[in-house]
Amino acid sequence: MSVTLATDARVWRVGADVDTDALAPGHAMKHGIEVIARHCLETLRPEFAAAVQPGDVIVAGPNFGIGSSREQAAEVLVRLGVAAVIAPSFGGLYFRNAFNVGLLLLTCDEAQQIQEGERIAFDARAGRVVRAGGQVLATEPIPGFLLDMVEAGGLLAQLQQRFKTRSSS
Amino acid sequence: MSVTLATDARVWRVGADVDTDALAPGHAMKHGIEVIARHCLETLRPEFAAAVQPGDVIVAGPNFGIGSSREQAAEVLVRLGVAAVIAPSFGGLYFRNAFNVGLLLLTCDEAQQIQEGERIAFDARAGRVVRAGGQVLATEPIPGFLLDMVEAGGLLAQLQQRFKTRSSS
Repeated sequence: MSVTLATDARVWRVGADVDTDALAPGHAMKHGIEVIARHCLETLRPEFAAAVQPGDVIVAGPNFGIGSSREQAAEVLVRLGVAAVIAPSFGGLYFRNAFNVGLLLLTCDEAQQIQEGERIAFDARAGRVVRAGGQVLATEPIPGFLLDMVEAGGLLAQLQQRFKTRSSS
Repeated sequence: MSVTLATDARVWRVGADVDTDALAPGHAMKHGIEVIARHCLETLRPEFAAAVQPGDVIVAGPNFGIGSSREQAAEVLVRLGVAAVIAPSFGGLYFRNAFNVGLLLLTCDEAQQIQEGERIAFDARAGRVVRAGGQVLATEPIPGFLLDMVEAGGLLAQLQQRFKTRSSS
């Protein structure tokens, strides 16, 4: 199963400047990732954590993931099965953390055209999102090594697989 | 010499959406980094590459470094001695590449208050920029391991130093 390609992903819409505290609330940070995930986006979309399904995508306004450097703000979305976050721009540290933990981010200038509940397709390697009506939106190209890392489940998972392959050969 | 701290850095101002092609022009990409650096920002600030001094900083509008994933767009600024780029937001891949090659980026909501030619101070670990008149602007906190990487001169330089320390101990 490739997470850089999806054909029928349901959209959850959020606005601009969604910060790491909205994704991984401070009050939950003393708990493990399972508990933090239950509080993900509770201030913006209270139903999200309980209702999101594996393969769904988040479509956001500019500056998704600004704020602190806490990795849990990306890990919770992986834990909840979110296939990708699509936004015009991301916090720099969030972008770094996301790929490291295996979360795909697609930078798309026209993301805000996409509607709540819409079903979309995307192909990260080809650099495009296809809307329900067939409209194609371009996404910024992402280097192959980062997409490989996402498909492997993140940096640690990728390194573990590499060492495993080497020691068994 | 720490590159996460500066006391008298001269400011070069550029606008929003400065892309990787403005930093490392496509027509120069067949050459080495030395030649590419001579063309850095030629379309926006033709005098920049020849006049920039080690320790100067670039202050930009939102979305600095959007576009392609070419690492040279960050390397040229290191090569030219730029101490930091300060902007409200950065392209996600640019943020990743910059720290990897030893270029400090400071995310600062109020960056656009800073003027061309102004002399500023910054302390990346404390998360602040101090303007010529004493006004303090907050910058987004950056994890220590990334600042350590910048001080070491980037990811490769840091790994080389680690291996050296280990093999001599």
